[in-house]
Amino acid sequence: MAKNKYVYLFSEGNAKMKNLLGGKGANLAEMTNIGLPVPQGFTVSTEACCRYYSDGKILADDIVKQIMDGLSKMEKITGKKFGDKTNPLLVSVRSGARVSMPGMMDTILNLGLNSEVVEGLAELTNNPRFAYDSYRRFIQMFSDVALGLDKSNFEKIIDKMKEEKGVKLDTELDANDLKEMVKRFKALFKKEMKYEFPEDPKMQLLEAVKAVFRSWDNPRAVYYRRVNEIPSSWGTAVNIQSMVFGNMGEQSGTGVAFTRDPATGEKKLYGEYLMNAQGEDVVAGIRTPQPISHLKEQNEDLYNQFVSIANKLEKHYRDMQDMEFTIENGKLYMLQTRNGKRTAKAALKIAVDLVKEGMLSEKDALLKLEPKQLDALLHPQFDAEALKKAKPIGKALPASPGAASGVVAFTAERAIELHKEGKKVVLVRLETSPEDIEGMAASEGILTARGGRTSHAAVVARGMGTACVAGCQELVVDEEAKKFKLDGKTFKEGDAISIDGSTGFIYGEAVKTVPASISGDFGTIMNWADKYRVLQVRTNADTPNDAKTAFNFGAEGIGLCRTEHMFFDADRIPAVREMIVSKTVEERKRALKKLLPMQKKDFIGLYKAMQGKPVTIRFLDPPLHEFLPHEDSEIKALAKEMGLTFEELKETVEGLKEVNPMMGHRGLRLAVTYPEIAEMQTRAVIEAAIKVKEEGKFDVVPEIMIPLTCDSKEFNFVRDIVARVADEIIASKGINLTYKIGTMIEIPRAALTADEIAKTAQFFSFGTNDLTQMTYGFSRDDAGKFLDIYYERKIFENDPFARLDQNGVGKLIKIASDLGKSTRKDIKLGICGEHGGDPSSVEFCHNIGLTYVSCSPFRVPIARLAAAQANIKNPRK
Amino acid sequence: MAKNKYVYLFSEGNAKMKNLLGGKGANLAEMTNIGLPVPQGFTVSTEACCRYYSDGKILADDIVKQIMDGLSKMEKITGKKFGDKTNPLLVSVRSGARVSMPGMMDTILNLGLNSEVVEGLAELTNNPRFAYDSYRRFIQMFSDVALGLDKSNFEKIIDKMKEEKGVKLDTELDANDLKEMVKRFKALFKKEMKYEFPEDPKMQLLEAVKAVFRSWDNPRAVYYRRVNEIPSSWGTAVNIQSMVFGNMGEQSGTGVAFTRDPATGEKKLYGEYLMNAQGEDVVAGIRTPQPISHLKEQNEDLYNQFVSIANKLEKHYRDMQDMEFTIENGKLYMLQTRNGKRTAKAALKIAVDLVKEGMLSEKDALLKLEPKQLDALLHPQFDAEALKKAKPIGKALPASPGAASGVVAFTAERAIELHKEGKKVVLVRLETSPEDIEGMAASEGILTARGGRTSHAAVVARGMGTACVAGCQELVVDEEAKKFKLDGKTFKEGDAISIDGSTGFIYGEAVKTVPASISGDFGTIMNWADKYRVLQVRTNADTPNDAKTAFNFGAEGIGLCRTEHMFFDADRIPAVREMIVSKTVEERKRALKKLLPMQKKDFIGLYKAMQGKPVTIRFLDPPLHEFLPHEDSEIKALAKEMGLTFEELKETVEGLKEVNPMMGHRGLRLAVTYPEIAEMQTRAVIEAAIKVKEEGKFDVVPEIMIPLTCDSKEFNFVRDIVARVADEIIASKGINLTYKIGTMIEIPRAALTADEIAKTAQFFSFGTNDLTQMTYGFSRDDAGKFLDIYYERKIFENDPFARLDQNGVGKLIKIASDLGKSTRKDIKLGICGEHGGDPSSVEFCHNIGLTYVSCSPFRVPIARLAAAQANIKNPRK
Repeated sequence: MAKNKYVYLFSEGNAKMKNLLGGKGANLAEMTNIGLPVPQGFTVSTEACCRYYSDGKILADDIVKQIMDGLSKMEKITGKKFGDKTNPLLVSVRSGARVSMPGMMDTILNLGLNSEVVEGLAELTNNPRFAYDSYRRFIQMFSDVALGLDKSNFEKIIDKMKEEKGVKLDTELDANDLKEMVKRFKALFKKEMKYEFPEDPKMQLLEAVKAVFRSWDNPRAVYYRRVNEIPSSWGTAVNIQSMVFGNMGEQSGTGVAFTRDPATGEKKLYGEYLMNAQGEDVVAGIRTPQPISHLKEQNEDLYNQFVSIANKLEKHYRDMQDMEFTIENGKLYMLQTRNGKRTAKAALKIAVDLVKEGMLSEKDALLKLEPKQLDALLHPQFDAEALKKAKPIGKALPASPGAASGVVAFTAERAIELHKEGKKVVLVRLETSPEDIEGMAASEGILTARGGRTSHAAVVARGMGTACVAGCQELVVDEEAKKFKLDGKTFKEGDAISIDGSTGFIYGEAVKTVPASISGDFGTIMNWADKYRVLQVRTNADTPNDAKTAFNFGAEGIGLCRTEHMFFDADRIPAVREMIVSKTVEERKRALKKLLPMQKKDFIGLYKAMQGKPVTIRFLDPPLHEFLPHEDSEIKALAKEMGLTFEELKETVEGLKEVNPMMGHRGLRLAVTYPEIAEMQTRAVIEAAIKVKEEGKFDVVPEIMIPLTCDSKEFNFVRDIVARVADEIIASKGINLTYKIGTMIEIPRAALTADEIAKTAQFFSFGTNDLTQMTYGFSRDDAGKFLDIYYERKIFENDPFARLDQNGVGKLIKIASDLGKSTRKDIKLGICGEHGGDPSSVEFCHNIGLTYVSCSPFRVPIARLAAAQANIKNPRK
Repeated sequence: MAKNKYVYLFSEGNAKMKNLLGGKGANLAEMTNIGLPVPQGFTVSTEACCRYYSDGKILADDIVKQIMDGLSKMEKITGKKFGDKTNPLLVSVRSGARVSMPGMMDTILNLGLNSEVVEGLAELTNNPRFAYDSYRRFIQMFSDVALGLDKSNFEKIIDKMKEEKGVKLDTELDANDLKEMVKRFKALFKKEMKYEFPEDPKMQLLEAVKAVFRSWDNPRAVYYRRVNEIPSSWGTAVNIQSMVFGNMGEQSGTGVAFTRDPATGEKKLYGEYLMNAQGEDVVAGIRTPQPISHLKEQNEDLYNQFVSIANKLEKHYRDMQDMEFTIENGKLYMLQTRNGKRTAKAALKIAVDLVKEGMLSEKDALLKLEPKQLDALLHPQFDAEALKKAKPIGKALPASPGAASGVVAFTAERAIELHKEGKKVVLVRLETSPEDIEGMAASEGILTARGGRTSHAAVVARGMGTACVAGCQELVVDEEAKKFKLDGKTFKEGDAISIDGSTGFIYGEAVKTVPASISGDFGTIMNWADKYRVLQVRTNADTPNDAKTAFNFGAEGIGLCRTEHMFFDADRIPAVREMIVSKTVEERKRALKKLLPMQKKDFIGLYKAMQGKPVTIRFLDPPLHEFLPHEDSEIKALAKEMGLTFEELKETVEGLKEVNPMMGHRGLRLAVTYPEIAEMQTRAVIEAAIKVKEEGKFDVVPEIMIPLTCDSKEFNFVRDIVARVADEIIASKGINLTYKIGTMIEIPRAALTADEIAKTAQFFSFGTNDLTQMTYGFSRDDAGKFLDIYYERKIFENDPFARLDQNGVGKLIKIASDLGKSTRKDIKLGICGEHGGDPSSVEFCHNIGLTYVSCSPFRVPIARLAAAQANIKNPRK
């Protein structure tokens, strides 16, 4: 095997080498190249990290050798010597992955000190206090990070010393105190670790490198990666950099600054600094840092030098920069620069401004944006000031974004009542069920004790754009007694609470919210996105209200209207139930006849809301038992209402029970068994379209979508029924109306036999929720129990229900798309699962040539941006 | 479109044209070609039938024209004229599909008669009785078959006339009586149908052809096709043949004969005939036919002519022939020949004899056999005489073949007790569950009220080779009261019943059974099969007993040992349950330690039974709740037994409940969560192999199979645990032992990512039961409810759980095989679902290059034969 290069001097790298050197390392190299004052050093590459893991957490000899070579070169560059008493080279050791993972991994400063070097440093700087302060910091950090001796052990010693000295601040301890502290630290170390604190700087360095590599896999980093979809295979680099000291006296200091305001995007230098301090002092917050503008007064030359560097960096990177700097005895050093994190609002403003300033093209500006960030602009948020005062009483799954504040209701009925009384409501339930729909719509937010990202509550809430925090396991709900307990407190109906569906936090009080604000920049960005995308964006909407929201967000049609959601309304469910308990086709038809005018009205509403854009209507999908109660008491009540005996109704309920309902009697299997259901739905779809057309409003082309197809003959059986009924109505009305019939592809077999199905299906829509379930053999309702362990054991890095699994499910989609096109060249291909609004999944859909994605209304702008980015990266021919 | 040829004279066809002309038509043509005396005519092809259906059940003009042309040619050949009074051509109209479907479709004889022609016929034959007998038969048949007027209407008239005349037999009615009968028949026809009975012979002919085409789709034909896996797209041909009359007097007759004895295979002419009769009289059974040998005495010349024809036909077709003939006024006519149906025993003897006689090669002899037929030779059967006297009281799904007779038990415990008392037992249950295993093994047969071919009862019974009739919906079982009701009778515990798992019949009495008899021919055939096959045949076996049975049937290893079946034994389940309720890893390990010696013993038994052949052991697969009771009363009892509170155990049971258990916490997901289970099972597998090796018995190569993999990382997680434990044990014993680790491919995603999985998996075994479930999105437990409608509506023709779906599931298997081989060239590929013993699925497995199939012990010989046939048809390079 060829010997690989694992170590790069800053002068050997550049900004494009992020994958190899990490973001920090690549930018340190870039700053070096463009002549900025950077303390020199070298980067141990991410490949070394991967090698460290594949070698079984061992630092191979060749890597060690390269590190030592790097060190020698550093000594030459700096003119200092590592471990030398008279002219010591001290270094910092910092992690730096491909993308920034703030605070997730470890850092060690002041490395290179030992009991001899510290003396030399004291002499050299003529500042013993500084030398011993640096040394005690090093002992503490190195013991904690590299050797696993928790830093709280040392904090106790510091506290005790301050008590003995009768002082309050660390800074009040003098050089002798700190010298004594070092002694005590070392004694503690020996007591706990059974060996002396390491004196050999080279050994210190290698241990520190390993510690950083290990920190790549610490639990908080693993969690961060999962949430942010960062593969564990990337690894982290390690940056070894010559120390500069902001704590050398009043001519020294350290600070952080942004080239623009990260909260608003305003174009002005923004940041703060602290004289005579190291970075950790700024964080500790004991002394208050100064705003960066104050530096101008303190040292105008230095300030001007910094402004000029900041401008240079922003122009160089063509993006807002987040910079760290240190001043050592009046000399400015740049320690880091990176594209700065910013709020959604700032991100849009900066993108638009950079284009105006001629720094970026529209395409490049679009690529700089993080589509998911737009979400924050589309939902109500907590007032920033109010939030500062609020203390969370719990945290669970952020299941549907936005902030909500209101009074507690424990039933859907009560939520509706309170809503009618003009109150804002937060619905709190063990878990929601389809009958709760109306109550959910009447609530500002929904909090559940059970269920995951794809639970009923989460899916419906996201569709409605309602805030939802789900699966709060600590939440003890007593729905009967109308109270819940959380964080030791008991809440009753009518008590105020607040939830944040973007963060998952729960607050035991009212917290002021502010409505979504969409600035003018947002419109500009969306226009650019539409200009550069080819993938269409539709929405999943079941009501005219949702449809209107989506239309305003730019949806180009409805990709999925779930007709069953309409079946649960209080005025309809009796007819639905009558249909279910029917014993003959005639009885069933009679019940369906009652539903027809209501369904028709729904569709008229949807067509009008979409103003002539295509509307895809999926026929009845869920198993029929979902429309019936399951508790004996409820069955009794309903039986009475329906004029049945308890036994009759109970028998129907029992008869509909299934062992695996997900794979049972649902989808088009219902239409095969009861063609009269499909007939009624066809009639409603077509008659509604004719009505809208006759009114001279819009020329709708309804798209009828058959769910759960697994076989072409099965599809054709239902398709033929639909076509017959539709053609009869159209002929009898003597009107010209076009409609389409297609199918969901959500069963693996449908994907595998898509060429056959495409012979008669005019469009496919990939139902990636079910397709993911069947392809993995995972029941969404049950997988939560074991998937956590899969994440913990690093078997899975992402939730396949949130991010499309391109290797498996995606392969099936690709197969189906190719087979479908082989039969029907112009087949329309869409996706309508939860994944339709996920940017990486949108990119995948663009790349394999789908016609559109369909997502919940509040994800439409996200999908539009993601689709534009996908086409900019990989233009479709 | 080029004009197609739909009509073929017999002289235009030959035996190879079965697909186009049907079996009967092709053979009539062949007999014509080799110069046998065949009444001439023509065949309307199967393509015409398909066209008839695709045209919307209309006989297209061009087909009508071709039929009329055929008729003209027939007139020329026979010198008779259709519809002519003086020299009338009469024809028979018979169905004839590609394969024989006896009695499934319709036939009309004597067509061409009307009120004028019948007079002419009477004059011409000088036999008015014959003429009017033929005419009244025609009216009856044509009305029934072609025009839908049920024949029972006519039977009533016949009965009334016999009563009036004071006679008992039809033959006692004279010419005038029959003339009167014709009158009455026509009057009835007019009354019922509101029009005159058709007089136009050409119209009669076209109606008859359409009637035969329609009969292709009658319910019994549809059912027959489904059971026999005949595609509906084949269609039937129609044969129009000049009539010859066996009922023209004492020099006429009709008969049926086989060239060999269809029951034993003995080489001697076998059959019977009846003078002065038409075919239907033989069937009616009023007069007793004579054995064919008697013809020699009656008319030696004719007999010799027939023997010579029979020999010629057998040599020509190189198979035992089933022939129909008619003698008209002393002249012999052949009406049909086909390869005769035969018993399994006869089939083997005939195949072996034909090779001995030099008529067939071994390969051709193997191809003549129907693998499924072997099944009959491997299970006990009812004594033929005893069966004649028994009357079925019900019929349900033939779920596991063989005959069983015994006393009724309603619980597994009671079955065991009765078995210990030396009684033969038939276990009768609503449905069986895993706890019933021991009781099922103690029974001769199993009868259930619920469940299909793949229900627990069916699967386990087939595995055990125990007879099972399942899903008898009429069966009302009261397990508490220990009685069941069927056919109006009540049966109590201890009452005798019998069931036939090959036919599905249930008898309310003891019926004598005879054990399986395997003749010497069986061995010969199996030796030939082994000589010509390359696909290996393994068995699914969980116990040494099953393994021995399979070994004796020629199994070359175990392809699937389900370890969970061992967990249900009464002496183990306490430890299993202890493991399930464990709250810590230590507790769980303690419980598992108790299971270890038992599992080890099982594996030692299996290794020894297989005498060193490979044994594939699948690790724990089912969800844990299957090992716990679900009724409160049982939970209470168990809690007491286990020293837990009811609430504790109830909580565990509730916690394990899943919405869709099929897609829940099972398979290797258990091993990911509880690695200690996999560790224990590995220990048992490896230690058992070492033990057997140390005893100097056999050098076993155990194959550890991980179930339910969906991802390579997931597989590797478990694989690494298994490998670590195995290697530790082997190293500590200082022994040389090889083992393999592979996985089931039973989740679509595993198939789609098989290239990744094959990097570490040494073998794949396709679990086609689960793969079929996931690929179709069908829950086996629930699909029964709607699949019947799918068959009824002709959406599905086969049960995908019985016959491998090659278009969908098969495509996934092919993808996985190809991907697997792309990574690991020599990967071992097997199949271990229910399909492993299905001949068409075996052929598919051969064709796509699998290494082996694994099936239940009693299907091993079937698979061996099917594998040989597959390789003869499509030799593997």
